[in-house]
Amino acid sequence: MEVRYKPEELTKLPRSVEYKERTVYMINQRLLPREFKVEAFRTVESVAEAIKNMTVRGAPAIGAAAAFGLALYAETSKAKSKDEFMDGFYKAYETLKNTRPTAVNLFWALNRIKKLVEEHLEDPLDEIKSLIVNEAQKIADEDVEANLRMGHYGAEVLPEGNLLTHCNAGSLATVHLGTVGAVVRVMHKDGSLKLLWLDETRPVLQGARLSAWEYSYDGLNVKLIADNAAAFVMQQGLVDAIIVGADRIVANGDFANKIGTYMLAVLAREHGIPFFAVAPLSSIDMSLKSGKEIPIEERSPEEVLTCGGCRIAPDVPVYNPAFDVTPHKYVTGIITDKRVVWPPFKRNLKKLFGEQ
Amino acid sequence: MEVRYKPEELTKLPRSVEYKERTVYMINQRLLPREFKVEAFRTVESVAEAIKNMTVRGAPAIGAAAAFGLALYAETSKAKSKDEFMDGFYKAYETLKNTRPTAVNLFWALNRIKKLVEEHLEDPLDEIKSLIVNEAQKIADEDVEANLRMGHYGAEVLPEGNLLTHCNAGSLATVHLGTVGAVVRVMHKDGSLKLLWLDETRPVLQGARLSAWEYSYDGLNVKLIADNAAAFVMQQGLVDAIIVGADRIVANGDFANKIGTYMLAVLAREHGIPFFAVAPLSSIDMSLKSGKEIPIEERSPEEVLTCGGCRIAPDVPVYNPAFDVTPHKYVTGIITDKRVVWPPFKRNLKKLFGEQ
Repeated sequence: MEVRYKPEELTKLPRSVEYKERTVYMINQRLLPREFKVEAFRTVESVAEAIKNMTVRGAPAIGAAAAFGLALYAETSKAKSKDEFMDGFYKAYETLKNTRPTAVNLFWALNRIKKLVEEHLEDPLDEIKSLIVNEAQKIADEDVEANLRMGHYGAEVLPEGNLLTHCNAGSLATVHLGTVGAVVRVMHKDGSLKLLWLDETRPVLQGARLSAWEYSYDGLNVKLIADNAAAFVMQQGLVDAIIVGADRIVANGDFANKIGTYMLAVLAREHGIPFFAVAPLSSIDMSLKSGKEIPIEERSPEEVLTCGGCRIAPDVPVYNPAFDVTPHKYVTGIITDKRVVWPPFKRNLKKLFGEQ
Repeated sequence: MEVRYKPEELTKLPRSVEYKERTVYMINQRLLPREFKVEAFRTVESVAEAIKNMTVRGAPAIGAAAAFGLALYAETSKAKSKDEFMDGFYKAYETLKNTRPTAVNLFWALNRIKKLVEEHLEDPLDEIKSLIVNEAQKIADEDVEANLRMGHYGAEVLPEGNLLTHCNAGSLATVHLGTVGAVVRVMHKDGSLKLLWLDETRPVLQGARLSAWEYSYDGLNVKLIADNAAAFVMQQGLVDAIIVGADRIVANGDFANKIGTYMLAVLAREHGIPFFAVAPLSSIDMSLKSGKEIPIEERSPEEVLTCGGCRIAPDVPVYNPAFDVTPHKYVTGIITDKRVVWPPFKRNLKKLFGEQ
């Protein structure tokens, strides 16, 4: 596979998470699509709160935001001793970790920096601080490069025609470009993407609010549907492949993603439509054997009782799981930044990591 | 089957469509769940507009509303001759007919009255007028009786436990009680309904707005989910059967219903969950051989671009089919007011009508 396009050839958007001069900059995704605003965060607590309240969302973007939270701590810490600095570091680590329970990238990014720091405890404090900042930047840069590779790998295996995607695994969900976002952008650039179906993705409407905004911003041919219309659109022969992100992929190929993904996987198989997940290696958690072990985050009933800020239902009991788990048997292939992984996933994911 | 309960033992709600003293009274379903208001309509045009803008919705309720529209015409017409009266009658008939394209009950109710009138053209004008009013009342009363029978038939075949329903096929969708509404109310009264899962049913949210309101009003144990969560709930083993209404059932058992029904049917089969449609004989259209012949109404993009009155998406292209067609192979049984029909549907529906 050859990387044929640069990020700036594929999108007009800035990075969704950036760090410079003791400040984390993030596109406030809660304001979209009404307002496109980059906000500045200057404390670890405000970064943690932004992860929690979904100002920033999408597993890789959360990972980068958390890493930049540690960079922010490193550069703003007033600790006078290394011990004092490390106490604050572990506190910042815990604060950032206890924000969202499902996204493995969050733990992955935080632990990557923590491990590095612990390996360099003998270094001077200033060097440890630089190490943290550089590693956080590296995490963000690697994410962009990984997306770019995924985009080109995906474009090699996806059929020309109409794709359907769920939620937002676009530029806004990552540092730049997106996982699904990179694939559809490369295909758009190649002229092989005819139409991108977007389901709205209730309850939080990432499809209607974010995907519709970012893909139309970049000139892709999109069409928005209610989640309920996906099966009908497939039945009519209007979908050539389904492509979704993944918050956490486990050793047997099962994966957790936004609620509704599992539904699309079942429908895809019923209609003979290929179904692909796209995720960087950092979203693959080989420590879990099967999807049954993935904890499912249940979010506030308010997300279902309201819609886009409007109250829509009377005060009744609600069940609001934020994710579901798609068993690997429904998955055609997993597009990673290293290559496309095909079934049998248990063997081929193991091989993928064995090669590293 | 024995009818064990009276309507007033099953619901505290009034009829959703009534006619008295030259006035059609309807619960304004656009105001629910915020406001429970019965509105008065005194012209054919306002009744037609109420059908069109979904002040009244649900196939049987629409049928009764249209019939009462003709009753209203009959009692308010200032025509001096029978010819003049009949000109106005046909005009009213057309106005009421050109409101919603999918609901077969609309055409059925209007044609039933038209046929009766045409058989009695030799009668005095006053008698023709009475005939129309009485027939419209009969259509409404028969609907309530039919629902009561469906409710008891359904309770005989559905498993005890947790049911899932889509959209609103409750009291609000009919004259009283509902189709699905009668079944779940009889089961609630019997103590065999543990939990009723309600999906919100985007884009118009009949589940969140109407079903959640009317079933909690009557004390049923309900739980609301986003449409995207239905597959997950089934995967967790939390659904014992699915029960939905039907806007039009055709000769082979295929049926049209609110968008998203087909999705649930596929998911039900994948999870080994029985899937029942409930509808009166008046919703069965034996003139169409297969579901492929049912025209699908496409509604305004605004329904998808907004939610409960809030704008949720940027200005992108939308596809908004209001219904989908569920092929009969996914259907466990059809609960009618005459009996439960089992596969093979083509033969057994023919037999059902042959017996009449």
